[in-house]
Amino acid sequence: MTEKLILSVLVDNQSGVLQRVASLFSRRGYNIESLTVSETEDPAFSRMTIVTSTQPEMFRQIEMQLIKLEIVKKVAILKPENSVSSELLLIKVRAKGIEKKNALLEVNRRFGARIVDVTLESFTLELTGRTEAVDEFISSISDFGIIELARTGVTSLERGADSFSEDI
Amino acid sequence: MTEKLILSVLVDNQSGVLQRVASLFSRRGYNIESLTVSETEDPAFSRMTIVTSTQPEMFRQIEMQLIKLEIVKKVAILKPENSVSSELLLIKVRAKGIEKKNALLEVNRRFGARIVDVTLESFTLELTGRTEAVDEFISSISDFGIIELARTGVTSLERGADSFSEDI
Repeated sequence: MTEKLILSVLVDNQSGVLQRVASLFSRRGYNIESLTVSETEDPAFSRMTIVTSTQPEMFRQIEMQLIKLEIVKKVAILKPENSVSSELLLIKVRAKGIEKKNALLEVNRRFGARIVDVTLESFTLELTGRTEAVDEFISSISDFGIIELARTGVTSLERGADSFSEDI
Repeated sequence: MTEKLILSVLVDNQSGVLQRVASLFSRRGYNIESLTVSETEDPAFSRMTIVTSTQPEMFRQIEMQLIKLEIVKKVAILKPENSVSSELLLIKVRAKGIEKKNALLEVNRRFGARIVDVTLESFTLELTGRTEAVDEFISSISDFGIIELARTGVTSLERGADSFSEDI
């Protein structure tokens, strides 16, 4: 049985960092469900959020292999109950004519999606939420006809008032 | 003078893809401002959105080097005027006491940010928008005291009713 593992990884903000982390996952055969990387509150560091699915007994091993990389400063395993996770979806959907457009608007309202581009034949929509909510939205509108979509992948912070990086 | 380049890259949905693209950028010395990757409407392909800053005369060269990779199916240079771009921010901010909390709520309303976690001493906020809007929000609330933040990086779709991948 595989389980979802969310890793928050603080790395040096320098070129080649993404390549080294991706290379570790590729070499070890760990899948990457999603990976996001961005600058942080401290310009010296970047933060990666990596989502992977694996046997729970592998969690600790992946954490240790990451921390062994010179560019990695800190690794935390984020548990769903102790963290806030979110991702962003852009999706272009067929919506030709007023009737289809209004039907799609109703689904939008239910999920809190926003319209970011409109043509005679389509809407491009933006939705933010947990992976499960984004998946549900996609399947709710799939009957309209999905033209194309892009997702950012998941980013996460631990709940509470503490900083992940304060003791570095 | 460097300019921002947004690349939308359709790649095979297989392991090692991220490593190969990251390796190309690292080897050539191109910086990666942000990179997001996700599955698409077609399970055979993943879509990467890569933001980099470089001389405009390099744009075509980077595009050609990407398309030469076996795993890359299609590359498009997305122009700001023809595309919709968005990213997601999670940010944990000091907000001790009701007065601070209400002051922060006012800034939130102006930017359309949502509260996703609250403690006695902090708010964790979620904001979606263009990079410039996210940057502006961060600087607007920095006086409260930023505990930590994470961003997804940018994802983009071309405006209009067409699909990027339809002619593959």
